[in-house]
Amino acid sequence: MNASLPAPALSGPALDELRAAVGSDHVCTGSEELDSYSRCTIPWQSRCRAVVFPSSREEVSAVLKIAQRHSLKVWPFSGGRNWGYSTTLAPAGGGVVMLLHRMNRVLEVNEELAYVVLEPGVTYAQLNSHLKAHGHQLWADCIDGTSQGSVIGNALDRGLGQTPYGDHFGNLCGMEVVLPTGEIVRIGGSDDGPKTWHLHKWGVGPYLEGLFTQSNFGVVTKAGVWLMPTPEAHASFVFEVQDERHLPQVIDAFRRLALQGVVTTKLHMINDFVSLTVVMQRLEQQRPDGAPLSGEEVAQLRRKYGVAPMTCAGGLYGTKAQVRLHRKSLKQAIGRYGRLLFVSDTMVALLERIIGLAWRKPWLRAVTEKLAGSSLQVLDSAPHVHRLLQGVPTDYFVKHAYYRHRRRRPDSGIHPARDGCGVIWFAPVLPFTSATMLPFMAQARKRFEEFGLDYWVAVLVLNPRAVTCLMNILYDKDDADEAGRAAALYDVLSNDMRAAGYQQYRAGLLAWEHLYDDAPALRALNARIKDALDPDHVVAPGRYGIG
Amino acid sequence: MNASLPAPALSGPALDELRAAVGSDHVCTGSEELDSYSRCTIPWQSRCRAVVFPSSREEVSAVLKIAQRHSLKVWPFSGGRNWGYSTTLAPAGGGVVMLLHRMNRVLEVNEELAYVVLEPGVTYAQLNSHLKAHGHQLWADCIDGTSQGSVIGNALDRGLGQTPYGDHFGNLCGMEVVLPTGEIVRIGGSDDGPKTWHLHKWGVGPYLEGLFTQSNFGVVTKAGVWLMPTPEAHASFVFEVQDERHLPQVIDAFRRLALQGVVTTKLHMINDFVSLTVVMQRLEQQRPDGAPLSGEEVAQLRRKYGVAPMTCAGGLYGTKAQVRLHRKSLKQAIGRYGRLLFVSDTMVALLERIIGLAWRKPWLRAVTEKLAGSSLQVLDSAPHVHRLLQGVPTDYFVKHAYYRHRRRRPDSGIHPARDGCGVIWFAPVLPFTSATMLPFMAQARKRFEEFGLDYWVAVLVLNPRAVTCLMNILYDKDDADEAGRAAALYDVLSNDMRAAGYQQYRAGLLAWEHLYDDAPALRALNARIKDALDPDHVVAPGRYGIG
Repeated sequence: MNASLPAPALSGPALDELRAAVGSDHVCTGSEELDSYSRCTIPWQSRCRAVVFPSSREEVSAVLKIAQRHSLKVWPFSGGRNWGYSTTLAPAGGGVVMLLHRMNRVLEVNEELAYVVLEPGVTYAQLNSHLKAHGHQLWADCIDGTSQGSVIGNALDRGLGQTPYGDHFGNLCGMEVVLPTGEIVRIGGSDDGPKTWHLHKWGVGPYLEGLFTQSNFGVVTKAGVWLMPTPEAHASFVFEVQDERHLPQVIDAFRRLALQGVVTTKLHMINDFVSLTVVMQRLEQQRPDGAPLSGEEVAQLRRKYGVAPMTCAGGLYGTKAQVRLHRKSLKQAIGRYGRLLFVSDTMVALLERIIGLAWRKPWLRAVTEKLAGSSLQVLDSAPHVHRLLQGVPTDYFVKHAYYRHRRRRPDSGIHPARDGCGVIWFAPVLPFTSATMLPFMAQARKRFEEFGLDYWVAVLVLNPRAVTCLMNILYDKDDADEAGRAAALYDVLSNDMRAAGYQQYRAGLLAWEHLYDDAPALRALNARIKDALDPDHVVAPGRYGIG
Repeated sequence: MNASLPAPALSGPALDELRAAVGSDHVCTGSEELDSYSRCTIPWQSRCRAVVFPSSREEVSAVLKIAQRHSLKVWPFSGGRNWGYSTTLAPAGGGVVMLLHRMNRVLEVNEELAYVVLEPGVTYAQLNSHLKAHGHQLWADCIDGTSQGSVIGNALDRGLGQTPYGDHFGNLCGMEVVLPTGEIVRIGGSDDGPKTWHLHKWGVGPYLEGLFTQSNFGVVTKAGVWLMPTPEAHASFVFEVQDERHLPQVIDAFRRLALQGVVTTKLHMINDFVSLTVVMQRLEQQRPDGAPLSGEEVAQLRRKYGVAPMTCAGGLYGTKAQVRLHRKSLKQAIGRYGRLLFVSDTMVALLERIIGLAWRKPWLRAVTEKLAGSSLQVLDSAPHVHRLLQGVPTDYFVKHAYYRHRRRRPDSGIHPARDGCGVIWFAPVLPFTSATMLPFMAQARKRFEEFGLDYWVAVLVLNPRAVTCLMNILYDKDDADEAGRAAALYDVLSNDMRAAGYQQYRAGLLAWEHLYDDAPALRALNARIKDALDPDHVVAPGRYGIG
């Protein structure tokens, strides 16, 4: 929670040169704009001096060269919707924010080989619309966070989606990078080749693309992304664990299913509070104080909304016969531990019609809720889950960020940073075994309670061997005491994690300072690479603990 | 085909220091030993000055520091069985070869999470025996090249195996590296963590492990390798394409099956000549001259041995129901284009008994060959294929390297470099479509013919979007003219490849000089990293075109 004095807006020759490079309309220095692009959801205060919007790799290169001449620090973001981490923040005062929104072309779609080539400004919503508009039989994996996120930006931060293509960096193939010193490099190939640039991830020679993820070694201006050919069949499933004593069996069964290749989806397991933050806000509760929901209140709300202590969701993909077979395997493996529901396209269409009517007809609502064992609010989310698992992005779930917000959340145009929501993401990676996950989660829950905040956890399967327990520290940004507790909780959770021998899968700026405390040799290696590629530390100094 | 004068064996203080560092017994400077470790299968002549065998990361570090002080060049190899590329060659005269054979401990086996941690000296045969001896229900993928290859070495050169775990670098997770300047770094973590070091491939912060593959940026001294939990069911399949006019349909069907996740194996498709080189040698043919087999001779030999123009092999893995289902999908997709055979453990056991008897009983041999439509020689290979697809390594197939050798190949202790076989691998990556693959392969075949050498091609599926057409230039190393033609053919194929816009998936030393001719920006980036990590260019200067 730093508080450097606001730096003055950029002016003089540096500003003139930036304007000449990208066009006057594409450099912002107005006070309101600088404020707006300095807003974030984490407890942090700093203000940039300018925001630039280059439209090409050449302009990106020009901006970096200008920054070098004038000793500016440039903070590049593909989309800047990285809520819970740092949005479009230049964390030290006086940085120049570079947003790549204008570089938003879908450069190539190859249906036969199932990939696209994108600029970093392309959003999930845009890619999805593009594929649909052109009738391509391809599904692009997306995040559940926001439809406005950058496909490439998320992959570069090694974010996670839903489908078998949910390892976004794992499915990134062939990138063009502008180095901090301005050179434009096609990683993996020549200027007009190789023709397998977007087909064979490793290329030839050292595999360098990983350097440009979770780092500040360059600015990616174009990349290939592998897509899923629309499968013959798809079913989503929701699995509700009513009795938490079954969690060990459920977790270990899912690991075995993942290792067997039956569950290839990036399974999500959310606790009750996650579900509640989607369907309600704190201001709807009677309690006026900042205290978290008590165990009893949570139990009441569970009953009110028909929410299970733990809910899992994922998808099955393949031929009709494959999906049928995997449904059976799933039922056999976990059926006895909770309520397992499979959802098809037909069911979703029907459900939507029923929900639409039931909101207006109390009798139908009563019948529906009774039959489903869930509230209309919770049922309402099922179609969104189903479509997410087909790569259709939605802003439906990011509503949870407003849980502790003092005003009612908007119905559309969700933007937690703009609206001043308090959100910090903390996402340790754990071995995918109940024996390691459950004690760690129990300890974390206690920590949330100690700091008077609600325990929000979504377990996301990274691969058959590892999960991330994504915890969300929701707090009221306008309440200094609560913001302080949120920051302190983050630090304590981080220390617990390090003491237990774990690390995060992505690290927000609150984590950067101590990221390599236990790994000085690795820190030194990163620093040597940084010095070689960015001798003046122009690009995002300090990002991911580098420079 | 360079020919620098042989450098004298190492002596003086540098040698004394190396001996002090790793023990006198583990530094070779004897003439015979230097010759022996300078042997290779490619047309190249050079001789190292010493061979060192460190036993720990600390000794590796010490060797590199000594090299720095005395301006020596060190060429590290994990196993040095990289036949077809450079074996244990220090390509410029005067290099020191560092072999990691003594670092051969299996450090950890985790059955629940299906991985091992290995030192680089561990071979495929050793790992397989270790898993079996301890009763682990895990299969390690292996290469079909040699049972004595290094598991880690192959992964670092981004080699390819057989099973769904056949992308060896893709399944490498968590490495320890000694930098050229001697620092020891655990990529991805601290000295005693994180506990997910071998579970989550990307770690946190920039993903650096790719740097240490196909490069000279450091020496890997330990790494995690993901294994396949022994599946409930496994069947291997062999598919013979009798009529080459069906190849377009077969190739495109396999791509679709791979994209659908039905075929997850690293499918191999070999031409007739590949099969012939396993069952026979040129010296068995009447022809005394160096000419390749004529089309008519190949046709005769096909009939004699019961070999198809193109043979595909792969495995199906999963539950019994999954394997049954995938058999059906395979039959539907490709059954009409050739002869599809599924092989089970039971069939293999039976086949081996029959083959064993049939070699001794002519009547049984005749009946067996008639029924199978294949010669006993070809049938003999089926159990080896089946077990390779279960991760059991074999030296059976590497026999092909002796095809043009002047003497009969040995029955055991296969070692093409020691025995002076001529082998050059050339392996361009192509999009996995018949429209790109077939014209490229047709052109390559013509080139082989032009240079009077036999056309040997194995198409290996890298992933559902890309294949490598591994071509093997087999030549008589004792025939200077033939060796010259082999080298010239390699250059012509390389030029054809570049002109068509492709690159290799691995590049032997014959390719290094021109590897980045079309990608100067990428060459410069590699050079900047090399200078930062190895300012004196101590480690393998020139490897993969770097430094």
